[in-house]
Amino acid sequence: MSSTYGDKIKISIFGESHGNGIGVVIDGLPAGEKIDMDKVLVQMARRAPGKDKTATPRKESDLPRMLSGMLGDTLTGAPLCAIIENTNTRSGDYGNLLSCPRPGHSDYAAFVKYNGANDIRGGGHFSGRLTAPIVFAGAICRQLLEKKGIKIAAHINSIGLVSDEPFNPVSIDGELIERLNNSPFALIDNSVEEKMRNEVEEARMSLDSVGGTIECAVTGIEAGIGEPMFDGVEGVIAKAVFGVPAIKGIEFGRGFELSKMRGSQSNDPFRYENGRVVTETNNCGGILGGITNGMPVIFRAVVKPTPSISQKQKTVDLQKKENAELEIHGRHDPCIVPRAVPVIEAVTAVAIANLM
Amino acid sequence: MSSTYGDKIKISIFGESHGNGIGVVIDGLPAGEKIDMDKVLVQMARRAPGKDKTATPRKESDLPRMLSGMLGDTLTGAPLCAIIENTNTRSGDYGNLLSCPRPGHSDYAAFVKYNGANDIRGGGHFSGRLTAPIVFAGAICRQLLEKKGIKIAAHINSIGLVSDEPFNPVSIDGELIERLNNSPFALIDNSVEEKMRNEVEEARMSLDSVGGTIECAVTGIEAGIGEPMFDGVEGVIAKAVFGVPAIKGIEFGRGFELSKMRGSQSNDPFRYENGRVVTETNNCGGILGGITNGMPVIFRAVVKPTPSISQKQKTVDLQKKENAELEIHGRHDPCIVPRAVPVIEAVTAVAIANLM
Amino acid sequence: MSSTYGDKIKISIFGESHGNGIGVVIDGLPAGEKIDMDKVLVQMARRAPGKDKTATPRKESDLPRMLSGMLGDTLTGAPLCAIIENTNTRSGDYGNLLSCPRPGHSDYAAFVKYNGANDIRGGGHFSGRLTAPIVFAGAICRQLLEKKGIKIAAHINSIGLVSDEPFNPVSIDGELIERLNNSPFALIDNSVEEKMRNEVEEARMSLDSVGGTIECAVTGIEAGIGEPMFDGVEGVIAKAVFGVPAIKGIEFGRGFELSKMRGSQSNDPFRYENGRVVTETNNCGGILGGITNGMPVIFRAVVKPTPSISQKQKTVDLQKKENAELEIHGRHDPCIVPRAVPVIEAVTAVAIANLM
Amino acid sequence: MSSTYGDKIKISIFGESHGNGIGVVIDGLPAGEKIDMDKVLVQMARRAPGKDKTATPRKESDLPRMLSGMLGDTLTGAPLCAIIENTNTRSGDYGNLLSCPRPGHSDYAAFVKYNGANDIRGGGHFSGRLTAPIVFAGAICRQLLEKKGIKIAAHINSIGLVSDEPFNPVSIDGELIERLNNSPFALIDNSVEEKMRNEVEEARMSLDSVGGTIECAVTGIEAGIGEPMFDGVEGVIAKAVFGVPAIKGIEFGRGFELSKMRGSQSNDPFRYENGRVVTETNNCGGILGGITNGMPVIFRAVVKPTPSISQKQKTVDLQKKENAELEIHGRHDPCIVPRAVPVIEAVTAVAIANLM
Repeated sequence: MSSTYGDKIKISIFGESHGNGIGVVIDGLPAGEKIDMDKVLVQMARRAPGKDKTATPRKESDLPRMLSGMLGDTLTGAPLCAIIENTNTRSGDYGNLLSCPRPGHSDYAAFVKYNGANDIRGGGHFSGRLTAPIVFAGAICRQLLEKKGIKIAAHINSIGLVSDEPFNPVSIDGELIERLNNSPFALIDNSVEEKMRNEVEEARMSLDSVGGTIECAVTGIEAGIGEPMFDGVEGVIAKAVFGVPAIKGIEFGRGFELSKMRGSQSNDPFRYENGRVVTETNNCGGILGGITNGMPVIFRAVVKPTPSISQKQKTVDLQKKENAELEIHGRHDPCIVPRAVPVIEAVTAVAIANLM
Repeated sequence: MSSTYGDKIKISIFGESHGNGIGVVIDGLPAGEKIDMDKVLVQMARRAPGKDKTATPRKESDLPRMLSGMLGDTLTGAPLCAIIENTNTRSGDYGNLLSCPRPGHSDYAAFVKYNGANDIRGGGHFSGRLTAPIVFAGAICRQLLEKKGIKIAAHINSIGLVSDEPFNPVSIDGELIERLNNSPFALIDNSVEEKMRNEVEEARMSLDSVGGTIECAVTGIEAGIGEPMFDGVEGVIAKAVFGVPAIKGIEFGRGFELSKMRGSQSNDPFRYENGRVVTETNNCGGILGGITNGMPVIFRAVVKPTPSISQKQKTVDLQKKENAELEIHGRHDPCIVPRAVPVIEAVTAVAIANLM
Repeated sequence: MSSTYGDKIKISIFGESHGNGIGVVIDGLPAGEKIDMDKVLVQMARRAPGKDKTATPRKESDLPRMLSGMLGDTLTGAPLCAIIENTNTRSGDYGNLLSCPRPGHSDYAAFVKYNGANDIRGGGHFSGRLTAPIVFAGAICRQLLEKKGIKIAAHINSIGLVSDEPFNPVSIDGELIERLNNSPFALIDNSVEEKMRNEVEEARMSLDSVGGTIECAVTGIEAGIGEPMFDGVEGVIAKAVFGVPAIKGIEFGRGFELSKMRGSQSNDPFRYENGRVVTETNNCGGILGGITNGMPVIFRAVVKPTPSISQKQKTVDLQKKENAELEIHGRHDPCIVPRAVPVIEAVTAVAIANLM
Repeated sequence: MSSTYGDKIKISIFGESHGNGIGVVIDGLPAGEKIDMDKVLVQMARRAPGKDKTATPRKESDLPRMLSGMLGDTLTGAPLCAIIENTNTRSGDYGNLLSCPRPGHSDYAAFVKYNGANDIRGGGHFSGRLTAPIVFAGAICRQLLEKKGIKIAAHINSIGLVSDEPFNPVSIDGELIERLNNSPFALIDNSVEEKMRNEVEEARMSLDSVGGTIECAVTGIEAGIGEPMFDGVEGVIAKAVFGVPAIKGIEFGRGFELSKMRGSQSNDPFRYENGRVVTETNNCGGILGGITNGMPVIFRAVVKPTPSISQKQKTVDLQKKENAELEIHGRHDPCIVPRAVPVIEAVTAVAIANLM
C-alpha cells in the first residue's frame, strides 16, 4: 500500500506532478479543535519553491483548498481532505513513454514496478511536489501537538562541507524553535548562511547539485511515549522520515558516533532536577528501549544531492535497449536541503501525533 | 501496539526475560513450503550467548518448540507458533520494585510507560533475549526468500575504532554470503578479527563496553519492489531494524557521506550488462524513490555500546526520589555487535518477505 | 479510524453533505489496467436520486472529477483520487447547533461522539450522499474483478411485505446479472415491480417510510479465497456492507433459516460436474470455514426504513434539556432500497477485490 | 492474514486441533490491571466439551498456561501469551491425505486454499477447539470492560424450533447478566430448557444435528462509541462474530424484521429519563450511524447445524476424482449452540474492547 502513514491520525497522500491535482486526506483528527490556517500557510510557504537562488524558479500557487473536515476554523472530526490544483496540466497530451531514466531518480525503478504505466511527467507520484500536502498535514498535526506543549523544530545541519551548530541536546530554547519555525533558511548559527549559500551557488555554477543533513528536535514530549520493539519511537519516526524523497539515512542522539564510544561515555546519567528525572547528557536522543525518557527527541537525516543536474550523464535507452547519454534541461534546485527542513518537521509532527 | 511487525508475513513477538517463556507467532506463511529446521537452529546458535569472551557466559538452551503451523517439515499455512521455555524462572518470587534505573537501559522509560507494572526482572520484555524469536522468524523467512534467489548477509562493519572491509556494493559473491551466514564473528576480512577482539577485551578490562556498526546486504532482489513514500524499502527496513534493541541509526548506500557529495558523484549511472540494466556504482544502496532498482540493497546500522557496565554510574532512586549511584553486578556482554549480526539479518529477512 | 476500508485496495471516503466536496482516495490499484469511465457513470447514475417517485426529487450532478491515478483511461498505479463538488454550499453560514436529534438518525450519537463539533448540515459525514464515492470506488473494483471472470449483482429482495424471487443459488445466469447491473429498480421477477412501488407509495402517502432487503451474489469466484477466522469471507463482506448507512443485518446462504434446519438438510453435498467439484445445494452461500468453495457467494442485507419521515415524532431538545417534538420538513426518500442496490454491489466489489 | 483481530487490543489465535498446542497472543493490554484467573477459567469451562449430552463426550483439560504478560495476577503491559497443550498428539503419524471432504465443513475449501498442505487432522486450524483461546482472550477483555461498567451477556435464543424469551431491549438486569454469565446452558426463561434439550436429543437420535440462534447484549456502554462507515459498531462486532465457526448471519436490534416495518414504527423516540437521553424502544440495537446511543447494544447470530453428522452423506473423492459417499464416525456435538454462547460473548468483549 503506498502513500499512507499512521493508524491514529492517518494521512493518505495522492496526486501526480502533472495530473489535475494533489492533496491529502487526514483521518482521525479530534473534533472541536481550532486550526489557525494562517500558520498552516506559513509552513507551506517555507517549502514552496522560487523564493531564492537555492530553489527552482518555477512559481506555484500551492494554496490548499479544504473539501471536508472543517467548519469555519474548527475540525469536525470527519476526514479532512485538502487539495491543491495543478495549474500546469495539459490535458490530452500524454507523452508518457519513458526512454532514458534519469540517474538517481525513481524513473527506472518505477518503470519496472508499474510496467511503464505510471505517469512520468514531472516525476508523477514521485515528484517533490507531493511534499506540499505532507507539509499541510504536518502543519495541522503540529498545532494539535503544541496544545500539549510539544514543539518541533529542524534546521539545516550541513550543506556539503559547511555545518551549522547543533542543537543543545539537553535544553532547547522556545525562542530558537520559534525562529527556526518561521525561517525559509533555518539555521541555529546564522553566520554560516553565507558560506552555505556559496556552497550551493558553487554547485549550481558547475551544473551540479549538493546534499546535506537536517537536524530535528522534539521538545516537551513526556516520558513513556512509544512501544517496545517495532513501534519504538525511532522506528515510527524513521518510517515517516524515509517517506520524504531523497532521504537516505537517519540517526538518533549521537547516532553513528556511538559506534566509536564506550558505554561509560554513551550512557546518559540520570539525576533529579526540580523534582523531575532528567539525564545529564542526551546521547540516546531522548529514546531508551524505543520509549521516550522525557528529554528532547533529537535526530539527523541525510538528504542526497538533487539528482537532477545539467551535466551530461550516462544512462540507458529502455526503448532501444542500449546505452545512452542524457542531458536534463530546465532549471532545478541545486540543493533541496533548505526546503526539506519544513518537510522533515512535518513528517515528524505526523509521526509524533501517531504516538500520542 | 507493541512487538508486531508486517502485514503480509506478520510476526508477533512475546515474552519476558524471566517469565515462563518467549516466542513468536508468524502469520501469513505459504502452505506447502518445506523448512530445514537445522538451518534455523544454525542461525539461532549464532545469536546465542556464551560462545566466547565477547559474550555473556550465561548458558541458555534456547531450543524452539513448534506448537503449530508445521506438519513434519512442511508449513501448513496456519499461524506458526514457536516457543522457547525460560528455564530460569523462579515462580512466586516477584521482586519487581524498580529503585534505580540503569543508565542507557529502558528501565526508566518503561517505568513511566507501564506505571511500574512491567516485569523488570532481567529487563522483562525489553531483554535482548527477545531477539531469539526474532532470529527464529527471520530464519524461516530467509529460507522462503532463498527459493526466490534472494540472499541476505551481514557482517561486523566496525567495533569501536576497528573496521572491516565493506561489501563491494555492485557485486557480492555467493560464497562470501555463505561464509558470513555461518560465522559467529562475521567478517569480510578475517584478518581484522584479532584487533576487534582486542578492542572488546580492552573495554571489558576497563569494566566498560563498546559499540559498533553492522553492514547488511540483500542480493538477488529484482527491480520494482517497494512502494512510493511511506512504504518505501528504506522505511520498511528501518522500521524492522529499529525493532532491534540498541540500534540508534541506519543509512542506505553511501548514507551520511552523501551529504558531502555532489550530484555528479552520487548519481549512479545506468548501463546495460548482459541485456540487464545495472548501475555502475551503487551509492543509492539499490533503492531509488523507495523502490529497488535491481542492485544489491545495502545498509549500515549502528549498535550503541552495551549499557550494562560494571563501573559505578550516576542514577536516581525512584522510590526515595533522590540522586543515587549504581553498580551493576553480574557479567555482561562488553560488546553485542557480533551477536547482533544474525539479528539484523533476521529482521531484514522479515522486512523483505513483507515487501514481496 | 473512520471511513477507510481494505488493506490491498484501500478506499478512504471523505466529505460532508454541505461541505465543499466529497470523494474517495483508492490506493493499491494495479498500474496499466484500463477503466471504462462510462460504465462507472452508469453505476453512479443508478444510485443518484431524483429518478422517480421512490427517491428524493433533489437533483445532483454528482459527476466525479479525477485528480490523480489515471492517465487517459489507464490506471497509473498511484493513489486515485476522485472528487464530487458540492454545489449547494453556502459558505459563511454555519448554522451548526443541534437542538433536536432526529429519531433513527445518527444525530444524537454523533453529537455525543464529536462534542457537538461535527457538521450537522444535511447529516454531515453521515449523509447518504457519501455513498456516491463508494459506488465510484466499487465501479472501479468491479471492472478489475470482471477481467478475472468475477461478477457481482444485487436485486431488491423485498420492500415491506412484497418480495422478489430469490437468486438460484447454484447457477446464476450472466444475462440476468447484466440486466440487474443496469437497472435502477433491480428485480429478478419484474412482475412484482408495481406491487413494490405501491408499497412505497403507500408509505409516502401516510408520511411514512418503508424498509426492505437486498440480495447480492458474486459469481465466478474460485474456491480457496478468504482466510480462516477473522478474515473469513463472511466477516470481510459484513464489515463492508455495515459501512453502508441503514444496514442492520446480514446473512449468508440460508442465513437465519439455518437455525431451524437439521445438519442433514443444511449440509451441501459435493459432487463432480464436468470435472469440477460443485455442491448440489448452496445453503452455505458459497463459503465454508470462511473460505470460498467455488459456488456463488450469496448474502442478504436488511435496510431499515428511512428514518426521515414527515410525521411528528418525539425527541429531546439537547439545548433546553427537555422532551420535545419534531417535524422533519422537506421531501425525503420514502424507501432507499432501490438506490441502495448499487451501493451494496459496490461495497461487495471492494470487499472481494481485497480478498483476491 | 489469518486469525488476527483488533488494532487496540490485538489477538492472534494459533494452533491446530492435533498439533502440539493452541493458544493466543494478546497485545495492547493495559499494564497494572489485575485479572481474576478463576473467572477466566469459569468462562473456559462453559465452552469446554463433555459436560452433558448436547456436547461431544471427549474430555479436554484445556487449562491455559501463561507464558508472558502477567506477573502474579497483574498485567505487565507486554504481550500476553497463553497456550493450551494438545495432549492427544501422536507425533510422527501424519496421515494428512484428504480424500473425501465432509459436507458443510471447511475441508474442501481449505484443501484448495492450502494446496493440500494444511493439517487436516481433527479439522486442523479450523477446528472448533480453536475457540478455547478465543474464550480466554474474551474473558480477559470482559474483566477490563467490567471495570468501566460494561457487561456482556448472551443466551440461547433458539435451538431448532424452540425459542427462549428475548432480552428486554431497553433494560437488562444485572442479576440476569450474572446468571447467564455463569450458566453452561444459558437461558432467560429456564422453563424452555427441557424442550430445547429434547430438540437436541431428537436430532442426535436421528443421527443428525440442529442449529440455533444466540442473542447477545452489551450494557453500560456509553453513547458516542464507534466510527462512521466501515468502523461502525455493527461492522466491528460482525467481523468478530463471523470469526466464530458456524456463524452464518448477524442482525442488530430488530434486524431483518425492520424490512417489514414502517419508519414510524422502527424509529426509536428519544426522551429524557433522570436527566439522561434514552430511547423508548430499542429497535436500532443501541447503534445509530454506526455509533452507540447509550442504550444496550443487542444482536442475534445464527449458528448453523453442526456439519458432522453420522448419516451417510454424498461427497467426492478428491484423489480418485469421482463421486463418493461418506460416513463420519466418532461422536459429535449434535448442537453446538450452548457451547457457542460463551464464545459469542468472548468475541463481543474483544470487539468492544477495541472500540473503547
